[in-house]
Amino acid sequence: MSDTSRAHALALDARDPLAPLRKRFRLPEGVVYLDGNSLGALPDDVPGALDDVVLRQWGVDLIRSWNDNDWWNAPTRVGAAIAPLIGAAEGQVVCGDSTSVQLFNALVAAVRLRPGRSVILTDPDTFPTDGYLADSVARLCGARVRRVPAGEAAAVLGGAEGADVAVAAYNHVDYRTGELRDLAGITRAAHDAGALALWDVCHTAGAVPIDADAHDLDFVVGCTYKYLSGGPGSPAFLYVARRLHDVFDPALTGWHGHQEPFAMEPGYRPADGIARARIGSPPILGMLALESAIGVFRETGMAAIRAKSLALTDLFIACVDELGLEVATPREHARRGSQVAVRHDEAHPIMAALIERGVIGDVRPPDILRFGFNALYVSYSDVVDAAAALGDVLASGSHRDPRFAVRATVT
Amino acid sequence: MSDTSRAHALALDARDPLAPLRKRFRLPEGVVYLDGNSLGALPDDVPGALDDVVLRQWGVDLIRSWNDNDWWNAPTRVGAAIAPLIGAAEGQVVCGDSTSVQLFNALVAAVRLRPGRSVILTDPDTFPTDGYLADSVARLCGARVRRVPAGEAAAVLGGAEGADVAVAAYNHVDYRTGELRDLAGITRAAHDAGALALWDVCHTAGAVPIDADAHDLDFVVGCTYKYLSGGPGSPAFLYVARRLHDVFDPALTGWHGHQEPFAMEPGYRPADGIARARIGSPPILGMLALESAIGVFRETGMAAIRAKSLALTDLFIACVDELGLEVATPREHARRGSQVAVRHDEAHPIMAALIERGVIGDVRPPDILRFGFNALYVSYSDVVDAAAALGDVLASGSHRDPRFAVRATVT
Repeated sequence: MSDTSRAHALALDARDPLAPLRKRFRLPEGVVYLDGNSLGALPDDVPGALDDVVLRQWGVDLIRSWNDNDWWNAPTRVGAAIAPLIGAAEGQVVCGDSTSVQLFNALVAAVRLRPGRSVILTDPDTFPTDGYLADSVARLCGARVRRVPAGEAAAVLGGAEGADVAVAAYNHVDYRTGELRDLAGITRAAHDAGALALWDVCHTAGAVPIDADAHDLDFVVGCTYKYLSGGPGSPAFLYVARRLHDVFDPALTGWHGHQEPFAMEPGYRPADGIARARIGSPPILGMLALESAIGVFRETGMAAIRAKSLALTDLFIACVDELGLEVATPREHARRGSQVAVRHDEAHPIMAALIERGVIGDVRPPDILRFGFNALYVSYSDVVDAAAALGDVLASGSHRDPRFAVRATVT
Repeated sequence: MSDTSRAHALALDARDPLAPLRKRFRLPEGVVYLDGNSLGALPDDVPGALDDVVLRQWGVDLIRSWNDNDWWNAPTRVGAAIAPLIGAAEGQVVCGDSTSVQLFNALVAAVRLRPGRSVILTDPDTFPTDGYLADSVARLCGARVRRVPAGEAAAVLGGAEGADVAVAAYNHVDYRTGELRDLAGITRAAHDAGALALWDVCHTAGAVPIDADAHDLDFVVGCTYKYLSGGPGSPAFLYVARRLHDVFDPALTGWHGHQEPFAMEPGYRPADGIARARIGSPPILGMLALESAIGVFRETGMAAIRAKSLALTDLFIACVDELGLEVATPREHARRGSQVAVRHDEAHPIMAALIERGVIGDVRPPDILRFGFNALYVSYSDVVDAAAALGDVLASGSHRDPRFAVRATVT
């Protein structure tokens, strides 16, 4: 049995090598924040960095900032800062736009790279936007979407249908259950079938090592407002493996991806390298806030983050077990991301009651309570405090207060 | 002859009804800023508004802000604030993403709305990204792009080819010359031919009345970092005429455009109304900065802004005439936007020398000096001061200093 006492949690905090990084985030008093898998907490560096962007770069340097403060290169520069966090060598990551837009662009490019193949393979339980965009790309490109659970994807790719798959597009983590998918295995099966592999790492970037280069991933799309704490609606990123750069042929041929944008030529000539994946004017405020936010990752490494994340989720699972609740997240480390999902018929009012007590997570239909653990700022004592609050809510029945029947929680 | 004296300019400033709005912007000392057609100056309200977004909404309210600070509705709420500036009744404008992405989405939707027609009609001198995306959409949708100058578009639409045009996609203002196109005439000709009209109003939104509803425009795309002063890379907007809402069928079917996003359904069911044009998570920092920035428009109206803009450009043209330079911008008010383009073989070094003197404009290839006039913060004395600096540079030959041969100016 794990020791779930608060004393033990405090002891773990005392010897946690990442504990000093907690003060790099501004966490409100009285809150245990377990929703960093949806919106990361505010990094302490961000307000000052944004003040500089707004007051000096925009306010004083004005248009000159595109050169003088290097706004022009922000998409590839911030991409380069994200690269080591997903195991990518330089020059393969661009930052910009939303996850949805990047998924669309990558899916079109993937289908075009496999002419004669008609299938986009994806998960019936994929995050909704991934599925909607797969359907949209299939319609535009004359392909079709085949929905196969992640656990069966390798077998399908290895069977007769595999030869018709252009791209296997999967989520690294199931956004509901927190299950970590077999990224290496599905990628290998896709390649063995002659297909490409596209991974949505929204729920792992900054929390779980991804090793994009080592696993020969083709395309990786992720958001930056979850474990990377880039801020609300901060721009997404796209990784394109270097071997595809010369043939990468995206749909969104915006002028920032042109070989010579300021030649203002009438015809599109794609830029070399990952700059080809640029689209239009980047969202500078959000992108430079993000750049500042991820500075904290230079002070640690993904291995240390992963180790603590697993220890935090191990401890929370032990606490939830003691409460007799159903854990929907796999217990094996190799199959777990950085969140713990608890299944309960009253998930919604329970979470509303927890939030009122200062323990913030979220819910996903139909019956999932989600608790996300960002190793950079969540402590072991947070974990036992959150579990204690959950136990109190259930023991007292406070979630049955009619106020909690109507509360809406989004994103 | 116009009076181009500084004394007269000061007299005009003294009776300018918009003059008090200048203090709503933070303009650096010693700068005459005539590049607000590329990046608008910093509105005084923005830093405080952003502080609240970052420190309180993100930092303290955290994920709850999607509900409690209504982040969720920001795209349609900010769209609703932009609507009156382009002459749109409520519920037809959404804010988000880049101009390039919005153009792509609108073009696909337009082509789909005219099945059996194969032509996207656009301008050979369109802003580059518009042309690149027209080519991309044509390729994806099995259409083709026909490039016809704006001045000939109505004739082509009225001829035999008109029956094959799906959409006429034009820029309201030529980004190089500042020429204002015949929005009403081309739109009417498009509709008479059974085609749709898409207008890119990047260079007019906030400077020239657009009257989207009155002119029966179908789609309007614009950026917000020029005359709307939303900040670097602030999100674009898309207007879709209400009569098209039920049949609008865009390519970028992101989950924010779903009828019930938080039902997390596997299939896409488009939202009603303009919300269908939402894509992914909106860039909250940039969007709320923009929301704050455009508050100043509530204190005046597009007619007053247009009147002053024309007076400013009239005065600048008179000054440039006195310098004996070639004005590339039409002199008729009905054919002029809010910028004045001066043609000169040495455009690039001249602008570099001007910028060093604190007069900021920009250049466009091959030989255009651009000066943009935002009536909210540019004064008549700015105009004569800028012209005087231009005259000084040319008289002294200071632009021939070798330093200015290499200077790059972007966006």
